[in-house]
Amino acid sequence: MIAREPATLLDEARAGSRPALARLLSYVESAGASQREVAALAYRAPAPYAVGLTGPPGAGKSTLTDQLITELLARAHLGEYAVSDVAVLAVDPSSPFTGGAILGDRIRMQRHATNEHVFIRSMATRGHLGGLSLAVPDALRVLGAAGFVLALVETVGVGQMEVDIASAADTTLVVTNPGWGDAMQANKAGLLEIADVFVINKADRAGLAETRRDLEQMLDLGGAREWRPPIVETVATTGAGLEELLGALDAHARFLSGERLKEHRRRQIAGVLDAVLGATLHARVRAISHGAAYEAALDALAQGETDPYQAAEQVLSLE
Amino acid sequence: MIAREPATLLDEARAGSRPALARLLSYVESAGASQREVAALAYRAPAPYAVGLTGPPGAGKSTLTDQLITELLARAHLGEYAVSDVAVLAVDPSSPFTGGAILGDRIRMQRHATNEHVFIRSMATRGHLGGLSLAVPDALRVLGAAGFVLALVETVGVGQMEVDIASAADTTLVVTNPGWGDAMQANKAGLLEIADVFVINKADRAGLAETRRDLEQMLDLGGAREWRPPIVETVATTGAGLEELLGALDAHARFLSGERLKEHRRRQIAGVLDAVLGATLHARVRAISHGAAYEAALDALAQGETDPYQAAEQVLSLE
Repeated sequence: MIAREPATLLDEARAGSRPALARLLSYVESAGASQREVAALAYRAPAPYAVGLTGPPGAGKSTLTDQLITELLARAHLGEYAVSDVAVLAVDPSSPFTGGAILGDRIRMQRHATNEHVFIRSMATRGHLGGLSLAVPDALRVLGAAGFVLALVETVGVGQMEVDIASAADTTLVVTNPGWGDAMQANKAGLLEIADVFVINKADRAGLAETRRDLEQMLDLGGAREWRPPIVETVATTGAGLEELLGALDAHARFLSGERLKEHRRRQIAGVLDAVLGATLHARVRAISHGAAYEAALDALAQGETDPYQAAEQVLSLE
Repeated sequence: MIAREPATLLDEARAGSRPALARLLSYVESAGASQREVAALAYRAPAPYAVGLTGPPGAGKSTLTDQLITELLARAHLGEYAVSDVAVLAVDPSSPFTGGAILGDRIRMQRHATNEHVFIRSMATRGHLGGLSLAVPDALRVLGAAGFVLALVETVGVGQMEVDIASAADTTLVVTNPGWGDAMQANKAGLLEIADVFVINKADRAGLAETRRDLEQMLDLGGAREWRPPIVETVATTGAGLEELLGALDAHARFLSGERLKEHRRRQIAGVLDAVLGATLHARVRAISHGAAYEAALDALAQGETDPYQAAEQVLSLE
């Protein structure tokens, strides 16, 4: 295969080439010159409106994503956005080996496999400077530059990594199940931080009322906010509740528009810039810790001739 | 109160003044010039041999610590070390408000409150550059400089913070209970990384055999290592199993001596140096993100005139 220039690939992707788009996304998963080149192009285009789905394994996120794709394409809009095509990024940060391949395959195997208006991509990181928390925003920008107005980002779990990824989304759905009370309690702060809509999927199971009550309580204790996350009950396998869910997404997309969206985007891009700054400086620490000054500092520390604070200053001054 | 110089305080602490020692430890919990001065003195003295205890809340760590203090003072040695006094650092990283005060109080309220050979201290952080993962190594060095040969470090939990704190210890006890199988599974990698001795406390409860089998299996799957963590059963409230536990501690302290201890100490101090380097560079990012260059970069990003990678380079070049 002949390596093509990012700019050429982006032209092809804009014209509808899915292999070109896939290649661009591979670039932003990697470290190096191509990632930089693609980023330089992609961040000049507007970001797509991104809907994040997160929740524990088994909550039914893939089935829900599948249903959302169908509904979004049927309605052809979300908030003020006209939606003709849907892109899906499937991210599994807890799975370094598959790099999320399983998630993507799970969706792909369903009914949208041959739909030309649906683009599904598993995200992996192959040495990207800042890991998935930078690869995902990069990938969203590539989708935007390729002409996508809407993207879904599916992530497993509710840990710090998921919070980072969710911060790249505009509307975040937290998917729970009846009986998920304990797990929610344990991650309360994280959930309140990221959730714009709560979904209780598998709502035909026992424990629905308790889970809804737990969520309401959590929201009550979370204090007053401009947007109180609605709680939607769904049965993704039958499509029950999807209409209400689309209504909630629509309402949040309309809420997050105008000046509010502008501020939100500025916070998002500040988060990305901070992550790049942090990753750059971390790379410096790693480079430093392979140098002679570092080894000399370690020797001095082992001998009790200095302390780590003076040693660090000295190492950094010799950079 | 007249502020005294760290050097004067250290002389007083060496002569047995507990208020002077407490003051020095307050300094290393804080940011600023005094922390630096104390560190400069403390890291020139050898570190005490540190025994870490970690495990979930309610596992019985405080009672076990209480029993260990009694046993250690009665035996007057651990491995090759002559033990006349015991220092305890009680750390609760999950509790930002108490700063671990509850843990310390819990031990203090027990029978060693008035024993002049026992020094118990709750660790909190009040703005230390690197948080508890630097405050704890600093505090251990202060104890060493004050003449302590042995210190116990009690921490709640088994998350990343606890792994960081455990890496400051020489022998780490992971305290579990019968029936704790699921929690162990979830933290397997972390536990195998830090545990030198497993304690199944409350061993008079149901589920002992299963928990021991789970632990053995975990160790079997963890692969061959020079030191295989023994599994000791205790009932801290009655003192049952304490003799065996002391035997296991003794064996590990003898194992970790000579060249092996020297290498271990070098890895430890390298971890501290890395943490200081990382924290210093993070402080730089924070400082940068309050500057005019950063705001200009954000404006350019919001306008789609640049990408975060170019923007970060520019911000760093203007530092």
